[in-house]
Amino acid sequence: MTYKNVDKKDLEYIVSLINDEERVLFGENISEDYSHDELGAVKKMPDVVIKVSSTEEVSKIMKYAYDNSIAVTPRGSGTGLVGAAVPIHGGIIIDLTLMNQILELDDENLTLTVEPGVLLMEIAKFVEDNDFFYPPDPGEKTATIAGNINTNAGGMRAVKYGVTRDYVRGLEVVLPNGEVIEVGGKVVKNSSGYSIKDLIVGSEGTLGIITKAILKLLPLPKKKISLLVPFENLDTAIETVPKIIKSKSIPTAVEFMQREAIVAAEKFLGKAFPDSQSDAYLLLTFDGNSEEEVEKAYDNVAKICIEAGAIDVLISDTEERQEGIWSARGAFLEAIKSSTTEMDEVDVVVPRNKVAVFVKFIHELENKFDIRIRSFGHAGDGNLHIYILRDDLDETTWNKKLNEVMDCMYKEASNLNGLVSGEHGIGYAKKSYLSTSLDKESLNLMKAIKLSFDPKNILNPGKVCQ
Amino acid sequence: MTYKNVDKKDLEYIVSLINDEERVLFGENISEDYSHDELGAVKKMPDVVIKVSSTEEVSKIMKYAYDNSIAVTPRGSGTGLVGAAVPIHGGIIIDLTLMNQILELDDENLTLTVEPGVLLMEIAKFVEDNDFFYPPDPGEKTATIAGNINTNAGGMRAVKYGVTRDYVRGLEVVLPNGEVIEVGGKVVKNSSGYSIKDLIVGSEGTLGIITKAILKLLPLPKKKISLLVPFENLDTAIETVPKIIKSKSIPTAVEFMQREAIVAAEKFLGKAFPDSQSDAYLLLTFDGNSEEEVEKAYDNVAKICIEAGAIDVLISDTEERQEGIWSARGAFLEAIKSSTTEMDEVDVVVPRNKVAVFVKFIHELENKFDIRIRSFGHAGDGNLHIYILRDDLDETTWNKKLNEVMDCMYKEASNLNGLVSGEHGIGYAKKSYLSTSLDKESLNLMKAIKLSFDPKNILNPGKVCQ
Repeated sequence: MTYKNVDKKDLEYIVSLINDEERVLFGENISEDYSHDELGAVKKMPDVVIKVSSTEEVSKIMKYAYDNSIAVTPRGSGTGLVGAAVPIHGGIIIDLTLMNQILELDDENLTLTVEPGVLLMEIAKFVEDNDFFYPPDPGEKTATIAGNINTNAGGMRAVKYGVTRDYVRGLEVVLPNGEVIEVGGKVVKNSSGYSIKDLIVGSEGTLGIITKAILKLLPLPKKKISLLVPFENLDTAIETVPKIIKSKSIPTAVEFMQREAIVAAEKFLGKAFPDSQSDAYLLLTFDGNSEEEVEKAYDNVAKICIEAGAIDVLISDTEERQEGIWSARGAFLEAIKSSTTEMDEVDVVVPRNKVAVFVKFIHELENKFDIRIRSFGHAGDGNLHIYILRDDLDETTWNKKLNEVMDCMYKEASNLNGLVSGEHGIGYAKKSYLSTSLDKESLNLMKAIKLSFDPKNILNPGKVCQ
Repeated sequence: MTYKNVDKKDLEYIVSLINDEERVLFGENISEDYSHDELGAVKKMPDVVIKVSSTEEVSKIMKYAYDNSIAVTPRGSGTGLVGAAVPIHGGIIIDLTLMNQILELDDENLTLTVEPGVLLMEIAKFVEDNDFFYPPDPGEKTATIAGNINTNAGGMRAVKYGVTRDYVRGLEVVLPNGEVIEVGGKVVKNSSGYSIKDLIVGSEGTLGIITKAILKLLPLPKKKISLLVPFENLDTAIETVPKIIKSKSIPTAVEFMQREAIVAAEKFLGKAFPDSQSDAYLLLTFDGNSEEEVEKAYDNVAKICIEAGAIDVLISDTEERQEGIWSARGAFLEAIKSSTTEMDEVDVVVPRNKVAVFVKFIHELENKFDIRIRSFGHAGDGNLHIYILRDDLDETTWNKKLNEVMDCMYKEASNLNGLVSGEHGIGYAKKSYLSTSLDKESLNLMKAIKLSFDPKNILNPGKVCQ
């Protein structure tokens, strides 16, 4: 497939359409930031960046791009890690960050209607100020909500509350040909034809551009508590998790972390973590509506941890102490990134009783390939975030080792009935791993679905399954 | 599209494939039951019924049917209400009820793996015996799990726990061409390409045949209580529901019912309901892990009900009393059906604060068209079950009134931002209402998706969007 480059005539049309020169960037006015995402390994500059302000603008641009075979890549905050927002075929970037209004809180239907560019942290604050709760809680709080929907992000609280998909009730979507559709709505149940909404969720901007989202809210739990549980080693820590699940306690979150990550975060944030003496930690949260309810749950889990070999159980029941711990957890990615020259990531998900096996395997790889690997992640839901660090390796050695290590990891994940990505998506960087892990028929179905939405393959081309 | 009839040669091949004559029915051996579903308005006999016993058999039959352009309709218990399991083009029925084994309870991953023909009531009993909980709870307990997945059934507990989609972690699916794919798995998070799993959920047997399902379980709540709340009239009852939701109490279920339905159920079951003096009732359930937690929630709601005009609040805290009430609720459909000569149903879903408006509208229609209409349903999630009764109307008058009443209802649902079906699906009977309520682009996408899975359109043809 070849795409038309954006020429002078196209640009004139776009400028006349947008009628606000400050929102159309081209040539030297385009910041280098638009050429990459957070991880930055894939780079390509667009021909033009359009900072859209309405669904109508998105629709008109898509129609024009479709008619003229110009590649279009939608973009939010650019916090992705797999190159999904990188315009690898050039063309147009539609930047949705100006469409950032919270449109409606409906307290009779428990829904929040938002524009695509609202940030996750803005949603969290807004709903909590109104005594509501939007459960998905990925580490990257500056991501846009449409970015989260496009990767079906899960975050910390998936153990108890599920993932973004579970909280998307309805969407307004601009299709590649510029038509605008609404899927789902404020309704709780829906059996009215195939779920196009659920196809859009997790489609990484390849099937349509989300211009509005109706999210499901819950009442805000009244009580929350965190436990920080030090262990002598990571194996013991992680092997405790299936015991917790088996006991029928459902914590809100169960994260695992190693001292290295904590020390890096302390350094990065300039703040001390409550404890960094032990090799490995579990960090758990419990929430509920009464003191008794939460106490009962964590009491039981604390006992299980001690029986399983925990050194101690540190309880954080004030907002301040919890904030301290979780902000360190939120800084892990940045802290690790700042500790090395370059890195790549793996975001596999395995059944949750296989996390210990997988983490042991990572440590073997670290020794075998003599390369620094850092991992942390969601022990409670089987989703691991693993970072392979370049440090001072030369280009050739780095590329060779990186490929070998990644191949090993994806193979092992597959052996354990795991999948390529838990929440970061496939984008551009993980395409080869997706195509080797899926059966041929599933991959062909995905390609056919893409063509159903986008026969000319102009919307975010070269991503996911293409 | 024309389909090949099953001839002698085809039959010989099928018999050789199945190698068990008792599982291949043809000619006079086919029970009339296979020509219709629970509602029975759409009828057509298949050429052959194959009672399959394995994924391999399903795969081989589909491959043969695909190569020879024979229409295939999958069928579970036949409890559907929209003709989705009726072989309107004849051909083969694949009956999945013999594939009825519970394969695995995995208490470390909180999953249950089942064959497609396991009944909903068997799953409920099995998991509860093991102290687990499968939340979806549609009224029809003899439905198969694959039937529930195919309509994305919701049931009573959707208010708090969501619908079937939210509990399907993974599926094994035989595609129209006979290929077998696995989608999802035991993993909690998944961002590995488009969600084919979520396309299959709710696709009413048109995209693939489900031969195995991995379901998500929860720990069984330790405490459950039901409230039966009589009101002087239905409007007052239903208008109370948004007040309950607004108070941030989340009941497990909120059903509304009228005296007529209760009296019919009493007659049908030969058992008295705890109260049938009032015109209208709300039936609520609360669950949780401690007495205090549940008490606190229902105390608050009981007060709201009284303030909103409830005559009384009857608390059922023993298993026996709750069973009595809920079994009456479960018998409403059968009871109404047995009170008339013929009926048709509407299963719209509206935003939950629009239920009162919609129910008032139904009562106006009842008067305007002078036809008996009964309704009950899920006040807490906006999903209404409405039955239009023929009684002693002649054929012409019945068809005329039925069409007019239905047109009015679907138009009103659409005006209220509702959808055609909350959980019964589209099947054959509701196709015209789906196609008029959807925008052209969404309908075209559905048709294109169908073709991606089934280019020869042999699997359950003539349903949903075709």
